[in-house]
Amino acid sequence: MSRENVFNFSAGPSVMPESVLERARRELMDYGSFGMSVMEMSHRSPMFQEIFSSTKEKLRKALSVPESHEILFLQGGATLQFAAIPMNLMDGGGADYAVTGNFSGKAAEEARKYGAVHIACDSAAAGHNRIPAQDELRLSAGARYFYYCANNTVYGTEWQYVPETSAPLVCDMSSDILSKPVDVSKYGLIFAGAQKNMAPAGLTVVILEKSLAGRELPYTPQVMSYKNLIKADSMLNTPPCWCIYMLGLTLDWLESRGGVSGMEKRKRERAARLYELLDNSRLYKPHALPGSRSDMNITFRTGDAALDAEFVSGAAARGLLNLKGHKVAGGMRASLYNAMPMEGVTALIDYMKEFEVRQHV
Amino acid sequence: MSRENVFNFSAGPSVMPESVLERARRELMDYGSFGMSVMEMSHRSPMFQEIFSSTKEKLRKALSVPESHEILFLQGGATLQFAAIPMNLMDGGGADYAVTGNFSGKAAEEARKYGAVHIACDSAAAGHNRIPAQDELRLSAGARYFYYCANNTVYGTEWQYVPETSAPLVCDMSSDILSKPVDVSKYGLIFAGAQKNMAPAGLTVVILEKSLAGRELPYTPQVMSYKNLIKADSMLNTPPCWCIYMLGLTLDWLESRGGVSGMEKRKRERAARLYELLDNSRLYKPHALPGSRSDMNITFRTGDAALDAEFVSGAAARGLLNLKGHKVAGGMRASLYNAMPMEGVTALIDYMKEFEVRQHV
Repeated sequence: MSRENVFNFSAGPSVMPESVLERARRELMDYGSFGMSVMEMSHRSPMFQEIFSSTKEKLRKALSVPESHEILFLQGGATLQFAAIPMNLMDGGGADYAVTGNFSGKAAEEARKYGAVHIACDSAAAGHNRIPAQDELRLSAGARYFYYCANNTVYGTEWQYVPETSAPLVCDMSSDILSKPVDVSKYGLIFAGAQKNMAPAGLTVVILEKSLAGRELPYTPQVMSYKNLIKADSMLNTPPCWCIYMLGLTLDWLESRGGVSGMEKRKRERAARLYELLDNSRLYKPHALPGSRSDMNITFRTGDAALDAEFVSGAAARGLLNLKGHKVAGGMRASLYNAMPMEGVTALIDYMKEFEVRQHV
Repeated sequence: MSRENVFNFSAGPSVMPESVLERARRELMDYGSFGMSVMEMSHRSPMFQEIFSSTKEKLRKALSVPESHEILFLQGGATLQFAAIPMNLMDGGGADYAVTGNFSGKAAEEARKYGAVHIACDSAAAGHNRIPAQDELRLSAGARYFYYCANNTVYGTEWQYVPETSAPLVCDMSSDILSKPVDVSKYGLIFAGAQKNMAPAGLTVVILEKSLAGRELPYTPQVMSYKNLIKADSMLNTPPCWCIYMLGLTLDWLESRGGVSGMEKRKRERAARLYELLDNSRLYKPHALPGSRSDMNITFRTGDAALDAEFVSGAAARGLLNLKGHKVAGGMRASLYNAMPMEGVTALIDYMKEFEVRQHV
C-alpha cells in the first residue's frame, strides 16, 4: 500500500500532516544554508538554538502561554512525568488524583512512591465511560496539586470542563493538546507526549508555572528537577532535536490552518460525523457517554469480539489502519487527531455503513 | 553553504553518513509498503516491531553482545543514566568512580544522592590530559560497581585498556561506541547517548548484564527500573521510534563498511594523520598525552585564546564547522566520528597548515 490509499487511525504515534512530512523531506539533507541536516546539528549551535527558541515561541503563541509559565522540551514520555511531577511538587505532602482511565491510574500508582495519593474520583467500575462532574470530585484539604488526564486515549472520554480546585491543576494533555484553545493560566502544570498532535515520539512538552519549581525531593535526578530544567532552558543535556524541529513544522502548519481555534472547529466536525453514525447504528455501540465523549479517540464495539476482529481486519484491507481498540478496553477505536483529513472520516464512515449492512442487523 | 562544501566536526550531535540520510529521505513519506512514515507508526504495530527487533539484532551482532546481556533503547540521555545507574545498582552500598573528565565528574556527583561514591582516580589537577594506569586506580572493597567514561569528549582522552576490577564495570561509551570492537562480556553495563556514532539525539542505548537488574531503590521511577525495562523489552512507554529506525540504518551502513573492525581501522587512520600534524607543529599544542589520546575527539590549542578564535572562525568560513573546544576546556576540538570522511580530515589538515604558515611561527 502507498500513502495515497491509507488512512492511519493510530492512537499514537499517529498520522502527521502530509505537508509537514514533505517539508521535513525537503530539508532533511540540507537545512537552510547550513550545509547539514537538523539531525547533525550541535544542540549548542546558533542554527539549532534558532530552531529551538522559535519553536518554543510558536508553541507559546499557539496556546497563549502566559509569561508566568515556562515551556520545557524534555525526554522520557508522559510516564517519566508520572514520577517527575510528584518528585517536584509533592513536597512532603499529598495530592488529589482523578482516575478516569488507564494513564491517570498509572500516574496515581507511580505517585504513591513520593507522597500521599488521594483518589478524587475513580470511574473504573463503569468501565471509564464518563467523566465525573465537578460536584463528584472529592477534594482533600491541603493537596499540593490536583491531577487529571484531559483526554483518555484508551476509553475515548474527554473532560468537557476545567475542574475548580484550590490546589494547582496538573493535567496530562498528551492526546488533546493543540486541538482546542486552553486557558493555560488556570494550570500549574500541563504536560504532553508529542506523538499524537505535535511531533514524532521522543519529545515531552511540559508547561509549568515557574513559581511551583524548586521544591524537589532530595533524590530527584538532576535532569528531572524542574528548577534545574528552567534554569538551563531545557538543555541540561542534549534535547531530542529532531522532534523539536518537527514540532516547529507542525506549529507552522497549525497556524496556517487557523491555530487551535481552527483545529477545534475541524475536530468537532470530524467527531460529530462519527458519533452521529454510532448513535444511529443498530450494530455499533459507542463506549463513552454523551457529555464525556472525546473528539480525539472514538471508541465503539459491536458487542461480539469476533465481529470486532472482522471489522478491524476488513478495514485494514481497505487501507483504514489501526482501528483495533487498546488491549485493556477491547473493541474498536478511531483516533481523529489534528492531522486526520476529513476524507479519512468519510472513508471510515462509508466502510462502517457497508459493514453494518452486510451484518443484516 | 550547501552540504557539498561543509565538513562538520561537531562533538555531538554530529555528522551522519550521507547514504544513511539519503535513505531516510527516500523512506520518509512512505516506509516499505505500509503507506506511512516511520514517524507515524504505532510503536505496537507489527511494522514498527519489526524495525525495533531488527535494529536490536543488528546492534547485538555489530558489538557481539552475548545472550547474558540485554539491549535497551531508552530516552533521557546519558545524564538520566547518571541517576538510573546508582538507583538500580548501588543497592544500599557504594561504588568506585574514575573521574577523567567532565561527564564522569558529573556522573560521580549525581551518584552521591544514591549511595557512597568513592573516587578511584581524578585527573582534574592535570587538566584531564591523561588516563590513569591500572595501578593508579584506587579500588574499594565491596564496591557495587566501577564506573568510568571510555572516551572523554571534552578533553580528548580515551581509555586504551579495560580496567581490571572485582566489581562489575559500568562504562559510558557515548562518544566511542561502535568505533572499535569491545568485549561486552567484561562489562556489567555499557551505556551511550546515540548522538555521536549511532543516531540523532533522543535515544540512549543501555547494554546490561541481566543478572544485575532487580535491585533498584524503592523510589526509582518505574520507567527507570532496569528490571521493568527488560521485562517490557524497553517499551514501558512509547520509545523514540525515529531514532531507533535511524540507528538501524546506521548499523546497515556500518556493516557494509566492515563493521566495528572497519570503523576502527578508519578512525585510527583519521586520528593518526591529525596527531602527526599536531606533534610536528610549532603552533598547535595537543592537549592529551600520548597513550591517552582519543581517536574520536582531538583537542589542541595555540596557547593564545584570540588566535584560537581566529582559527575557528577562519575554518568556519571554509566550511570546516564546529571546531571550537568545549567551554570548560577552551581551545579547539576536532571530532572525527565514524561518519567523518577522510576528505574532511584532509581539508582540515590543509587549513591547519596554511593557518600555521600565516602565523610565521
